[in-house]
Amino acid sequence: MWFPVSVKGVRAVVGKCFRGCQERCYSQTVVETDHTTLSTIPPNSTIFSLIQPTGKIHLGNYFGAIKVWRQISDIISGSPLLSGNSKLIFGTADLHAITVPQEPSLLRERRVEAMASLLASGIDPKNVILFHQSSVPQHSELFWILSTFTSMGSLNRMTQFKSKAHIDERSALTIQETIGVAKLGLFAYPVLQAADILIYKSTHVPVGQDQTQHLELTRTIANSFNNFVKKEYFQLPKTLLAPSKKICSLKEPLKKMSKSDPIEQSKIMITEEPDSIRLKMHKAMTDSIEGKIYFDPVERPGISNLITIISAVTDKTIQEIVMEVEFFTKKELKDYTAELLIKELAEPRIKYNEYMKNTDLLNKIAKEGSERAKSIADVNLKEIKKLMGFL
Amino acid sequence: MWFPVSVKGVRAVVGKCFRGCQERCYSQTVVETDHTTLSTIPPNSTIFSLIQPTGKIHLGNYFGAIKVWRQISDIISGSPLLSGNSKLIFGTADLHAITVPQEPSLLRERRVEAMASLLASGIDPKNVILFHQSSVPQHSELFWILSTFTSMGSLNRMTQFKSKAHIDERSALTIQETIGVAKLGLFAYPVLQAADILIYKSTHVPVGQDQTQHLELTRTIANSFNNFVKKEYFQLPKTLLAPSKKICSLKEPLKKMSKSDPIEQSKIMITEEPDSIRLKMHKAMTDSIEGKIYFDPVERPGISNLITIISAVTDKTIQEIVMEVEFFTKKELKDYTAELLIKELAEPRIKYNEYMKNTDLLNKIAKEGSERAKSIADVNLKEIKKLMGFL
Repeated sequence: MWFPVSVKGVRAVVGKCFRGCQERCYSQTVVETDHTTLSTIPPNSTIFSLIQPTGKIHLGNYFGAIKVWRQISDIISGSPLLSGNSKLIFGTADLHAITVPQEPSLLRERRVEAMASLLASGIDPKNVILFHQSSVPQHSELFWILSTFTSMGSLNRMTQFKSKAHIDERSALTIQETIGVAKLGLFAYPVLQAADILIYKSTHVPVGQDQTQHLELTRTIANSFNNFVKKEYFQLPKTLLAPSKKICSLKEPLKKMSKSDPIEQSKIMITEEPDSIRLKMHKAMTDSIEGKIYFDPVERPGISNLITIISAVTDKTIQEIVMEVEFFTKKELKDYTAELLIKELAEPRIKYNEYMKNTDLLNKIAKEGSERAKSIADVNLKEIKKLMGFL
Repeated sequence: MWFPVSVKGVRAVVGKCFRGCQERCYSQTVVETDHTTLSTIPPNSTIFSLIQPTGKIHLGNYFGAIKVWRQISDIISGSPLLSGNSKLIFGTADLHAITVPQEPSLLRERRVEAMASLLASGIDPKNVILFHQSSVPQHSELFWILSTFTSMGSLNRMTQFKSKAHIDERSALTIQETIGVAKLGLFAYPVLQAADILIYKSTHVPVGQDQTQHLELTRTIANSFNNFVKKEYFQLPKTLLAPSKKICSLKEPLKKMSKSDPIEQSKIMITEEPDSIRLKMHKAMTDSIEGKIYFDPVERPGISNLITIISAVTDKTIQEIVMEVEFFTKKELKDYTAELLIKELAEPRIKYNEYMKNTDLLNKIAKEGSERAKSIADVNLKEIKKLMGFL
């Protein structure tokens, strides 16, 4: 049974899914020693996050990050206590994207598509700074400075490097050989993430569970810097525990939904047409277990994935959804999920197409966001440079 | 016997001194597959180099780099063929300085002192862009981009990392443990060097012999970038074979002269007073070999060091100097060296003190240099960002 847990004092075992899924589909449980929830965001917060510019986004990106960003923005702009003094800074992680080779013309398009997706999903640039990471030089500048505070050992312990560098015990290459071929950018990018977060003195980061280890490293680096300058210059950023949902593949529901999955029917994009959503749901893999619908991501990954999608759309808990659907047939469950998704994605689909017809507007929004981000980053970097002896 | 060699097709064995000195005192021989000499600088050259901002500079820095920079500048500004179309970009490597912890207030002072030393040594900001590296953000920006083109293996092979990270077979720690404690900045800094050089599309770099391995890496990285963007975007920078001299400690002449040497009498600063130069020369270590003066850095490191200093001051070859001084007594050799140095350093000493009284002027020169450097770097980085898909 799935239930949202938050256990203080226990570190998440990254790489192992609480739900019993395969390695890359992490549990929805954030097990963090120190976090904030949506209902307890304090005044004067700076909330920061980036998404990979993978172009058009799918349900996994939408429910895993972007819908949560919109909810955070709604909460803050709707609260007189928060709206005047908090900052929301979201963007595309285009500098991170190049840690694996990117075809330049595709990267250029995908940045635009990602920006259109964010806006189409209801993120309002009036309330949120929306920008492309590479347009703010201070990220790279702080990255270098922080690289002199980060031990090689702490980076060696990052599990994502090992997974992305394809370090695999079954490989014909030794670990040393595999690391040798891997690029520095792939090894060093958790330090760029730390710079991304700290350049805005972010207080909260709504991270995916696969990123908790990196946020921990950010705190370690911030601490080293604070020790060096002998003051609490950086507030240690906290995890913002958000009700994000990890959506799995519709065809192989033990795997995370992935844009790069060659099976089209495994994924639903936020711009997906209603008929296509119905068809993909109809063909979604479930199981042959008879009787009542219940939630069990290990025995019934397909069914559980649909329940998770319904929960993500309706913002109800898994338990509530299970009570609603337990007597549905599998076909009814699929139809219900499809219709909910069609309704959820109706506005994003229309808006996305509108934005993509108006790339001048998209570029203008990104430019304005970059200028706002830059002005904050500039003030902070000047302070940091003074502390280092560069000014 | 010392003789300037340039062997095409043979790679220098870095870490081993041709002159038989200890590890950090490298031979004056640059053994490079492809290089340019001062007399063959072609039109449209961009010549780039940085020095560590270690404050006031000593003979090692002066004869090892700065006097050469001045000579390059004199050649270019005196040549109608070169003066209109070549760029000279020299500065302090303050971003590199922090790869080992720096007391911020000291770093701040040392940057100023380094700038004063460059100017006092006769480098004219009318002919040369003089700047502090940290004031040009494009260095860090290109550093990140190039880090995605640099393999971990190529950085692992850099001998300076091993030496600076104190990787030592006699250590109680294993190599893995020692690397683990070392900071990413120390490991990654050859990539920052590549960015330093390539952000200006530098064609020539007057590197010290301990840097030839790094310049080779710069070429490798430039090549990888060129392959990725499918054109010869970066011209591969060449070594500028300059008559720089490696000056050794006056007290332990098998070691390089070093600012951090606690023995004051081991080093002579460019601001050294005449009486102090005479005293230090008088107390310089030589040997007990009798008879003629001759040059042999292994058997007679102290004597050979004095000969090298004379050669550096007079711009004559070692052979010429040996012919001049072979019948000198050791005392005469020391006196002769002292008087030559006093004459060589007279102007730098006076000018240094003048500049240090006028830090406003120093800051103005550095600021103007940074603006000029930034405007070149900005144009190039925009091109690079377009090629990557960021613009």
